[in-house]
Amino acid sequence: MSTYGLVHGSCHTGEHWGPVRKHLEAAGHTVVTPTVLGHGPGVEKRVNHAQQVEDLVHQIVTADLRDFVLLGHSYGGTIIARLAEEIPDRIRRLIFWNAFVPAPGHCLNDEVPPHYRAMFDGMAAQSPDNSVMLPWPVWREAFINDASEALAKEAYDSLSPEPYQPFKDKLDLSRFYQTTIPKSYLNCTEDTALPAGPDWGWHPRMSSRLGLYRLVQMPGSHEVLFTNPALLAAKIIEAGRD
Amino acid sequence: MSTYGLVHGSCHTGEHWGPVRKHLEAAGHTVVTPTVLGHGPGVEKRVNHAQQVEDLVHQIVTADLRDFVLLGHSYGGTIIARLAEEIPDRIRRLIFWNAFVPAPGHCLNDEVPPHYRAMFDGMAAQSPDNSVMLPWPVWREAFINDASEALAKEAYDSLSPEPYQPFKDKLDLSRFYQTTIPKSYLNCTEDTALPAGPDWGWHPRMSSRLGLYRLVQMPGSHEVLFTNPALLAAKIIEAGRD
Amino acid sequence: MSTYGLVHGSCHTGEHWGPVRKHLEAAGHTVVTPTVLGHGPGVEKRVNHAQQVEDLVHQIVTADLRDFVLLGHSYGGTIIARLAEEIPDRIRRLIFWNAFVPAPGHCLNDEVPPHYRAMFDGMAAQSPDNSVMLPWPVWREAFINDASEALAKEAYDSLSPEPYQPFKDKLDLSRFYQTTIPKSYLNCTEDTALPAGPDWGWHPRMSSRLGLYRLVQMPGSHEVLFTNPALLAAKIIEAGRD
Repeated sequence: MSTYGLVHGSCHTGEHWGPVRKHLEAAGHTVVTPTVLGHGPGVEKRVNHAQQVEDLVHQIVTADLRDFVLLGHSYGGTIIARLAEEIPDRIRRLIFWNAFVPAPGHCLNDEVPPHYRAMFDGMAAQSPDNSVMLPWPVWREAFINDASEALAKEAYDSLSPEPYQPFKDKLDLSRFYQTTIPKSYLNCTEDTALPAGPDWGWHPRMSSRLGLYRLVQMPGSHEVLFTNPALLAAKIIEAGRD
Repeated sequence: MSTYGLVHGSCHTGEHWGPVRKHLEAAGHTVVTPTVLGHGPGVEKRVNHAQQVEDLVHQIVTADLRDFVLLGHSYGGTIIARLAEEIPDRIRRLIFWNAFVPAPGHCLNDEVPPHYRAMFDGMAAQSPDNSVMLPWPVWREAFINDASEALAKEAYDSLSPEPYQPFKDKLDLSRFYQTTIPKSYLNCTEDTALPAGPDWGWHPRMSSRLGLYRLVQMPGSHEVLFTNPALLAAKIIEAGRD
Repeated sequence: MSTYGLVHGSCHTGEHWGPVRKHLEAAGHTVVTPTVLGHGPGVEKRVNHAQQVEDLVHQIVTADLRDFVLLGHSYGGTIIARLAEEIPDRIRRLIFWNAFVPAPGHCLNDEVPPHYRAMFDGMAAQSPDNSVMLPWPVWREAFINDASEALAKEAYDSLSPEPYQPFKDKLDLSRFYQTTIPKSYLNCTEDTALPAGPDWGWHPRMSSRLGLYRLVQMPGSHEVLFTNPALLAAKIIEAGRD
């Protein structure tokens, strides 16, 4: 049995892993689902990427997590790439689930289409705390395209604004690109949160940056943690085993 | 429950939707399956794209269809893009099922590989009425690759020649590219009626032209209306719901 | 019922088809699984591509195989392309299963990424007999990504070194590129033995070279003959039927 550390994406918190956690635990695994700094309703949104990483390192070292499989979803990919630099000896394998694998020196915003950056810039400028939120139509059509409207709405109502500064913080990542920690990429084949295709898509654009990696795929959108947590848990196990 | 208007592709007629219609109606939906002008055995093939659109507008207005989901298959994509310009207030959502989304000012022939155009040109010149027909080997290998030979033949025998002029009629589409009607793209993952890949494939080449759209995928060829109508109906519902 | 001739890939032998053969035979088909010259433990590895083809022609003519479906897996694609030149009248259809379709005049090495060529060159130079072997991490992550670790190891232990000269033998293939034998491409959607994507991937890079061809896809890695032989057999039948 394995220990899984699951790092959520933008606008989510650790609590969103609930149904996935249940399936992984039912299969005998131990699951840790930290919340990244600045995430959740009512918390301080003026944080940066370095603070988020520092806080997670502290959480992991305090809990003395060792030999665990570290998964990042979406924005969480930028976090686990950095954790692989800070606490490499604790990590058994990295799983990027439709996650950003930033090129060396890039920030998240360098990896998204210009119309997304423009939308985020406008939202952050309008916000009281430099945060952004996915508009409903984008969420419904491009993020959770496999949900019923009712589930899409229920999930949307559980989201909270995303701190924007970490999208703009450049990440050196030179140590990440030299790590020998085994890596998997889990790709949902109907995920259009990034536009499908070679220019902007998740796979193989992001996955191929991992060098030698294990590809695991499943049907579904960017948000199968809401729409198909049972299959997601099974695929996490396929991606995470030795 | 919803109303679906299903617009067939080349060499087909509205009757070919029969099995799909049955599944949609069993799920409680209302289904309308008009035949596009110039389609079917023994009818006048010397029609143009504008006449086809005008005739369908007349059919839809006469039946007073409102608030309906409008789907186009293959060539039918060129039709529904135009209908979205002519009767936008009647359409709840557009679904392009492995359908052409012509670039502004393009005709269908501008969107297919040169060897297809050359084949069509030769056939039309040889025909008595400026029509074209898919050769059996192309149908069997590239259009209905997931069928048994018997089903492939039975389906082929039900086809009829396609009016060629509409493939060459340029479509302005500037109003279509400004419409705010919600859009879905339904992609069959083994559809090689257009050659797979970024240069000529259906998805994401055609789908990405829709801007914000909902992606739904299913296994199968260009002709799952023959080979898997039950799953096609289920995916139409996923693509068509709010 | 059909006769299938199955040509294995690098480091494999004809015996590896055992479970697939069982399923094909259970469906009533006849199956022939020759071993390509230089493959298997303890045999002479200093052979070239022409000798491999000559030997297989001899095996097929001696057995008087006629009207059979000829499938090549991976490296086996280079073999069946040549067999289609040498014994075209005996072949009913060609199936390339995640197989190389070399461009005219190319050798296999011309079709793989530079880092693979460099790895092979180094291994062959170190070997006593100009042979190469997949390193375990590459096998586990990129070739048999859908297996449990135990199955991955068991399969790895059954492999044997690959003669290297045939990877470097240029193949004219002008007769192959003119053949009218029907062709299918069977693609496993999680096969990363060649890096996914338009630059180096199997499909559509290799498949599109076949001109008119039938696409059949299934989930799984490069080695579904170990991980899912039942589905592989079913898809071979879909790819091989008329």
